Amino acid sequence: MADRLGDNRPGTNLNKNNPHITGDNNAMIKDLIAKNRSYRRFFQEVPIERRTLEELVDLARLSPSGANLQPLKYILSCDPQRNALIFPHLAWAGYLKDWPGPLEGERPSAYIIILADTQIRQSVNCDHGIAAQSILLGATEKGLGGCIIASVQKQQLQEALNVPFRYEILLVLALGKPKEKVVIETVGPSGDIKYWRDAQGTHHVPKRPLDDIIIA
Amino acid sequence: MADRLGDNRPGTNLNKNNPHITGDNNAMIKDLIAKNRSYRRFFQEVPIERRTLEELVDLARLSPSGANLQPLKYILSCDPQRNALIFPHLAWAGYLKDWPGPLEGERPSAYIIILADTQIRQSVNCDHGIAAQSILLGATEKGLGGCIIASVQKQQLQEALNVPFRYEILLVLALGKPKEKVVIETVGPSGDIKYWRDAQGTHHVPKRPLDDIIIA
Repeated sequence: MADRLGDNRPGTNLNKNNPHITGDNNAMIKDLIAKNRSYRRFFQEVPIERRTLEELVDLARLSPSGANLQPLKYILSCDPQRNALIFPHLAWAGYLKDWPGPLEGERPSAYIIILADTQIRQSVNCDHGIAAQSILLGATEKGLGGCIIASVQKQQLQEALNVPFRYEILLVLALGKPKEKVVIETVGPSGDIKYWRDAQGTHHVPKRPLDDIIIA
Repeated sequence: MADRLGDNRPGTNLNKNNPHITGDNNAMIKDLIAKNRSYRRFFQEVPIERRTLEELVDLARLSPSGANLQPLKYILSCDPQRNALIFPHLAWAGYLKDWPGPLEGERPSAYIIILADTQIRQSVNCDHGIAAQSILLGATEKGLGGCIIASVQKQQLQEALNVPFRYEILLVLALGKPKEKVVIETVGPSGDIKYWRDAQGTHHVPKRPLDDIIIA
């Protein structure tokens, strides 16, 4: 059974009288998070300016970092030439066995590559996840969308972009104006979490119910 | 030189005509992210309801997960008895050498413990960072705040809460109504990122400038 985005839980304003709340919608972040699905097909002809990517990285810059070490560095790409150097080293949607990835015309308009500066810290714990989510929520607010890609041919991409060995590629964030519809479902009794695409091309993503993930 | 929150970069609405943007403020997520500082002292007498913690975990539930495997599980704590089992196993603010952590009365009102279900996946890559940031942004929207704690005596906490070995503790999110002021600064020429507390008790957090972290 497909639960359409936003149908699961009614918005609950528990803070009507709290003067600390800015804005008039306590469910705004929930709305953004619900919209921030992983998108893999885009209107590639819609460009993203480098200035926009810089604004998104600024959101990551202001996000938490373990011991405030801030070991993350970023490479931006928003022109077709550089994008074409990146795309071949990405793997897409492992569960869609018959789909090798977006075709030309539906590929990302931009990428933000998240790297670790190994001179600052050898391992980054969860900094890159924090950064990636801040970036994607900012992209969603701008009417864009994307996908956090960990399946990256890191060595080949490092060479293609001449990235010094000091920096280790952690994630590639693909960004663009989304060209597909994605809906959330509740994981069924089989427990199968594999996303799937229906005959209309809508992408379905099973999510575990709240009662399953809260264990105490 | 201290940059007050929000002073760094003027809000830029690049999407005035974009019908996809909901709400009237394109800088809303930036505002939330700027407010989402790491807080370590709280009005402990202000309780947080379990229902609120469930809403926050629901934000994490709807956030991206590598291969959609969703290996994260959550333990919630919002009563003094359980909170008191957790607190002793947390380390706070490593750079504040003379400060061992919040005193009774200033401790968190609640905790969300993020665990990995090792039966689903042995290592979670950056899922926990994504989840933590979603939870903290939701808490910020509700006028709360918190701190992502990785310095946890994991084995002792596992025993204190009788957590089955199947689940591995990854992070503890401390939550409450913040009782301290935190300001962002730009890292100076020394490159020192260590946060510090001034004579008035304001917490200063040096952040690397955008030009330093964008390497290409």
